[in-house]
Amino acid sequence: MMQPTPVPLDDTTRGLLEQCGASTIANVLLQRHGLSRAYLLGLSVVRTGLPRMVGPSYTLRFIPAREDIDTMANYQRDDNPHRRAIEECPAGHVLVIDAGGSTRGASAGDIMVARLAQRGVKGIVTDGGFRDTPSIARLGLPAFQRGNAPPATPIALHPLALCEPVGCAGVAVYPGDVIVGDDEGVVAIPSHLAAEVAEVAYQQTQYEFFVETQIPRGRALYGLFPGTPESRAEYHRWVAAGRPADFDGLAP
Amino acid sequence: MMQPTPVPLDDTTRGLLEQCGASTIANVLLQRHGLSRAYLLGLSVVRTGLPRMVGPSYTLRFIPAREDIDTMANYQRDDNPHRRAIEECPAGHVLVIDAGGSTRGASAGDIMVARLAQRGVKGIVTDGGFRDTPSIARLGLPAFQRGNAPPATPIALHPLALCEPVGCAGVAVYPGDVIVGDDEGVVAIPSHLAAEVAEVAYQQTQYEFFVETQIPRGRALYGLFPGTPESRAEYHRWVAAGRPADFDGLAP
Amino acid sequence: MMQPTPVPLDDTTRGLLEQCGASTIANVLLQRHGLSRAYLLGLSVVRTGLPRMVGPSYTLRFIPAREDIDTMANYQRDDNPHRRAIEECPAGHVLVIDAGGSTRGASAGDIMVARLAQRGVKGIVTDGGFRDTPSIARLGLPAFQRGNAPPATPIALHPLALCEPVGCAGVAVYPGDVIVGDDEGVVAIPSHLAAEVAEVAYQQTQYEFFVETQIPRGRALYGLFPGTPESRAEYHRWVAAGRPADFDGLAP
Amino acid sequence: MMQPTPVPLDDTTRGLLEQCGASTIANVLLQRHGLSRAYLLGLSVVRTGLPRMVGPSYTLRFIPAREDIDTMANYQRDDNPHRRAIEECPAGHVLVIDAGGSTRGASAGDIMVARLAQRGVKGIVTDGGFRDTPSIARLGLPAFQRGNAPPATPIALHPLALCEPVGCAGVAVYPGDVIVGDDEGVVAIPSHLAAEVAEVAYQQTQYEFFVETQIPRGRALYGLFPGTPESRAEYHRWVAAGRPADFDGLAP
Amino acid sequence: MMQPTPVPLDDTTRGLLEQCGASTIANVLLQRHGLSRAYLLGLSVVRTGLPRMVGPSYTLRFIPAREDIDTMANYQRDDNPHRRAIEECPAGHVLVIDAGGSTRGASAGDIMVARLAQRGVKGIVTDGGFRDTPSIARLGLPAFQRGNAPPATPIALHPLALCEPVGCAGVAVYPGDVIVGDDEGVVAIPSHLAAEVAEVAYQQTQYEFFVETQIPRGRALYGLFPGTPESRAEYHRWVAAGRPADFDGLAP
Amino acid sequence: MMQPTPVPLDDTTRGLLEQCGASTIANVLLQRHGLSRAYLLGLSVVRTGLPRMVGPSYTLRFIPAREDIDTMANYQRDDNPHRRAIEECPAGHVLVIDAGGSTRGASAGDIMVARLAQRGVKGIVTDGGFRDTPSIARLGLPAFQRGNAPPATPIALHPLALCEPVGCAGVAVYPGDVIVGDDEGVVAIPSHLAAEVAEVAYQQTQYEFFVETQIPRGRALYGLFPGTPESRAEYHRWVAAGRPADFDGLAP
Repeated sequence: MMQPTPVPLDDTTRGLLEQCGASTIANVLLQRHGLSRAYLLGLSVVRTGLPRMVGPSYTLRFIPAREDIDTMANYQRDDNPHRRAIEECPAGHVLVIDAGGSTRGASAGDIMVARLAQRGVKGIVTDGGFRDTPSIARLGLPAFQRGNAPPATPIALHPLALCEPVGCAGVAVYPGDVIVGDDEGVVAIPSHLAAEVAEVAYQQTQYEFFVETQIPRGRALYGLFPGTPESRAEYHRWVAAGRPADFDGLAP
Repeated sequence: MMQPTPVPLDDTTRGLLEQCGASTIANVLLQRHGLSRAYLLGLSVVRTGLPRMVGPSYTLRFIPAREDIDTMANYQRDDNPHRRAIEECPAGHVLVIDAGGSTRGASAGDIMVARLAQRGVKGIVTDGGFRDTPSIARLGLPAFQRGNAPPATPIALHPLALCEPVGCAGVAVYPGDVIVGDDEGVVAIPSHLAAEVAEVAYQQTQYEFFVETQIPRGRALYGLFPGTPESRAEYHRWVAAGRPADFDGLAP
Repeated sequence: MMQPTPVPLDDTTRGLLEQCGASTIANVLLQRHGLSRAYLLGLSVVRTGLPRMVGPSYTLRFIPAREDIDTMANYQRDDNPHRRAIEECPAGHVLVIDAGGSTRGASAGDIMVARLAQRGVKGIVTDGGFRDTPSIARLGLPAFQRGNAPPATPIALHPLALCEPVGCAGVAVYPGDVIVGDDEGVVAIPSHLAAEVAEVAYQQTQYEFFVETQIPRGRALYGLFPGTPESRAEYHRWVAAGRPADFDGLAP
Repeated sequence: MMQPTPVPLDDTTRGLLEQCGASTIANVLLQRHGLSRAYLLGLSVVRTGLPRMVGPSYTLRFIPAREDIDTMANYQRDDNPHRRAIEECPAGHVLVIDAGGSTRGASAGDIMVARLAQRGVKGIVTDGGFRDTPSIARLGLPAFQRGNAPPATPIALHPLALCEPVGCAGVAVYPGDVIVGDDEGVVAIPSHLAAEVAEVAYQQTQYEFFVETQIPRGRALYGLFPGTPESRAEYHRWVAAGRPADFDGLAP
Repeated sequence: MMQPTPVPLDDTTRGLLEQCGASTIANVLLQRHGLSRAYLLGLSVVRTGLPRMVGPSYTLRFIPAREDIDTMANYQRDDNPHRRAIEECPAGHVLVIDAGGSTRGASAGDIMVARLAQRGVKGIVTDGGFRDTPSIARLGLPAFQRGNAPPATPIALHPLALCEPVGCAGVAVYPGDVIVGDDEGVVAIPSHLAAEVAEVAYQQTQYEFFVETQIPRGRALYGLFPGTPESRAEYHRWVAAGRPADFDGLAP
Repeated sequence: MMQPTPVPLDDTTRGLLEQCGASTIANVLLQRHGLSRAYLLGLSVVRTGLPRMVGPSYTLRFIPAREDIDTMANYQRDDNPHRRAIEECPAGHVLVIDAGGSTRGASAGDIMVARLAQRGVKGIVTDGGFRDTPSIARLGLPAFQRGNAPPATPIALHPLALCEPVGCAGVAVYPGDVIVGDDEGVVAIPSHLAAEVAEVAYQQTQYEFFVETQIPRGRALYGLFPGTPESRAEYHRWVAAGRPADFDGLAP
């Protein structure tokens, strides 16, 4: 079965993606690439208003716990993949956790998240949840979850493996997929498409900024949004004019 | 089958309703009129702390999308009811969207909401969700949803019709029903009852303000809340006295 | 917004579809026509083992009930669309009901279903549920629902309109779409595709019958299922041989 | 069947618990006492950032309402357990409400919560929800719920009994159990374990504060978190040194 | 708070109810008595085709289990209300169990159900589930549940009390309420209304039998169902004629 | 992280387990071994009344599909793990599928199940669902699912790996775990415990057969179920007497 080979994320692409909303990116993936299942469903960010999270995925997979295996003694071992994920997820990456959707045990707590932040990791995403969310909010690292999950991890979750393709919140996440997260949610971009998607999404974002300058002028959406060849020409004149807030798109 | 004839919303009623909580209105609808299903279930507001939303409903109905119909080409047509709803919902009204509860596609995005606000629409309600919610929050127009729905509309939703009776979050909404929304949620008032409901809810709200002046005095709820004839007399003395914060209701 | 024009269902197509499983049809719609949302999700048949249901859809739409409108007096009116649907759904058609997924009130009861059967209607589908399901089972008309819904209809549902496009169990159903239902569930076929889909699904079904003759011979799925050019040739030899149960596909 | 005898909550224990997170307490209950179901699932606080809620539970049990019993006349009686709970829950306690998980009727409104606060009650917890949540947020009393529930109580809920063991959000709550709630959620501690749990949780919390001083130094979690004998010795040196923020745990 | 005083179930009423469907009874409760929440939602019978279950309710309430209380030692005590319920539920009654909707532990197993049957109890209803359902099916006692629940009871459930008002599947069940269950589901009738409800439901059932004789004659529902004064007169002529299957209602 | 080493299933153990219900086995795992999460939640069997399924697990893991990877071309490759699972699952084993709980695509269809049966596989379990369930029922191989899933596999599911530990319906399933399934559901036994669990469960089952002979004699559960030392002695006398149906346990 074909598996994608990860393409490294370059700085230009990262820079563009940091300026594009998750929903705009999801739209580009759909319209340009026919990918309809890129948006991780049902997740929310622990703290709103942070800078956008962008980075290649590093994955951790949990399965349900079993009492004879998931003892505290085993949990404390240094080869526990849960602990290894925190120490081994590369700087600049995003840790993506497949918790099978369970919030009955914590996918991580504040100290783990603090260590990730200190190591330069860009964010953490789980389809389960975290403990210590008030403290995680204070840390300022983007953290996405389905819901709070304060009980101890081994009550419900067994850390099984690192760097495998996983399912997270209904979406396939392959190691290296570029993960973008903001206050709206999280989207996964196949890494070989990231540069192209970033360019198109950036242009689309800028076009929407142009549209926003026209709304206060009382223009209808017709002929403006979605864009038409005429309005795209207006947009290019707006760009050429230095993107002024008071631009009159219809002026000859 | 009988259908209600919409009664226009007058300014006095609108003014009273702007001072009444959604839950107080729901209570009046139940106790005075036997209407138990007026409260839209499971919705929350994108941004709290905004002034209360009040206006007659203008409705848009979605059905699920089908790939051969819900193409981007069709989506961009000017007779698309989704786009028409944004341009045709009258100023002073509230756009109510029946998305069949689906958050798999956006009921609207920030540019659509910006255009509604610019046109003087009072708010937007969907039993699905929006894309671009951070940006919608900045716009300051009351917007109510079941959950974020960033994927592009045509992935999941087909806009079918305007101005029809719809179901929204478990409640029948007929065109012209008066919609009131605040940080607690959204309630639909049959338009022919709006003036009466507003008057009663306003009195009830004022009575509760009176009760709030008595709580710090250490009075029990008995004989005070729910009101009794004696406490209603106290209330009228409080009103007559100019609604002072330090009123002693029990004083002779 | 483009709407499909219904194409009548001819007897040949009906006859082929009566021999094809709902899941095989859904597969053809996906692979040949890119339609991924044709299968009505979460429905089950009241009585298993009946002949397959095939017919064009006739639709009824409910919205939530409101106590002042959905009185028993209104319910008993002859122009009630609920009652009209039972009397007006054409013979040979399938009545498809959009109940907004609610099982808090009955989409129909046994007497309504008996009348449909007597009139020659082919079946009834709701994304809500029925009352009197034991009696409906005895009638022998295919009836599909999400779950039992014994409470009286007007407790929860208001019949609004006939012959409109509706959403049912997550699928768009346009009037005239060809509905096929069996013990696995229900699929909706755009009417202009029905003849082509029927032909392909019939061939696929027959091919699977051929495969079933090879399984007891111990053949692996490789080279057999999904089919290959070689195995398709075997299949044609099997057809030419009169479709014998003991056919040796690999024989030269 | 054995029932626990409540042990009063002493001031020392209360003081320690006010410094311990709900998730840390849940961990202690699991690891020391084998209690895996102490965390109330799916609840959130109406207003974040308040001081931690600590107090023995006082319970109220609702069952579903029935129209002939749950009239407004009955609701207004002074012996209504709903109203009695507000007047009788002792100061320093937490009112815990078993609403059977229903948000179809309010477990309490702002005036009831204001009266609880005025009486010195420490907080209110329901597995249903409240009406008037914006106003409850302003009051500043910790209030935990599953979701907003603005409809009038008697639409859905019948107050049955006080001071009984109840189930709340999937957890057994016996009268007198010590309830701790913060922005993460709510945990119930068997009262006879409260003093021991408080001591252990306090030490664990302080240990985590120590760990937080080491993260910025770039130390890995190995040998630090979860703690080892060596790191526990570091911790004691940190305590002895006056808990300085810039402590070098590894220094000899 | 007013509580209903149970009225004993007489043999005439029991005999009539045994001939009336649960959904017909729910309709009578709504239309005659304004009771809209009598139907237990989401339950199904372990084995279909059994005679209808009728009897006054005897109630058992569970709360969630706690590991230190719900030990096997405690479970085996003779004063365990779970075991007492099986031995004390009176013959002719129906055991109704409030399991808080949990199927994480068994509400009962086959030996308990066998003992109930041997003691003359009429049936068992839980909003949780049973273990040993194949064996329960063989016993032939009507047993209603939300879903299978094979894990041992003390994993999840603590038996707390007998003969209290409970909530079960969203419905208030007071001790002595008359419970009727068949293949459609379960309805609870306030005991003081049982005789009247039985009489009306019986007449309605017989009227529907009359309607069923008219459907094969090709009559429309108009003027027949719901009944009119004219059709009620036909019905009485049918009764007078000995309820013949081939009755011509329209004949002069 | 410790992983269990599979212990082969011997014929004696298999023979005993074939005589023990899934719920009895779950009870033994809880009481003897403290394992509370052995029962796969929410699954049901496609066809009831088949012999009990017993065998070591062979696992297949799906993740969500992505349109560019999960093409029909890729699906048809012979190294597709979905197809390999059908051809490689050893005779005598049970194929356990982790579908992430999704019923949006089929975990298997009738031809795949027919091939499994022909190869001597003992059964198939998924936490998603099957297509062609009517045909699967006719095959007679035990097949367990969460719900019907007729859409084509690649719409929703990507087959990733074989023979890995997986989560299935909330339970950890390690390759080689002994899976037992009957009309009640499915339980997973750690392979190193299977022989001991089988022996205890068999004795418990036989004890319950003894109890069933005593119920018709009118004996109460007290002193009989759960068993006591006295009743265990009775049981041994019953065994010694050849397990007669009419045994009088209390006879001296």
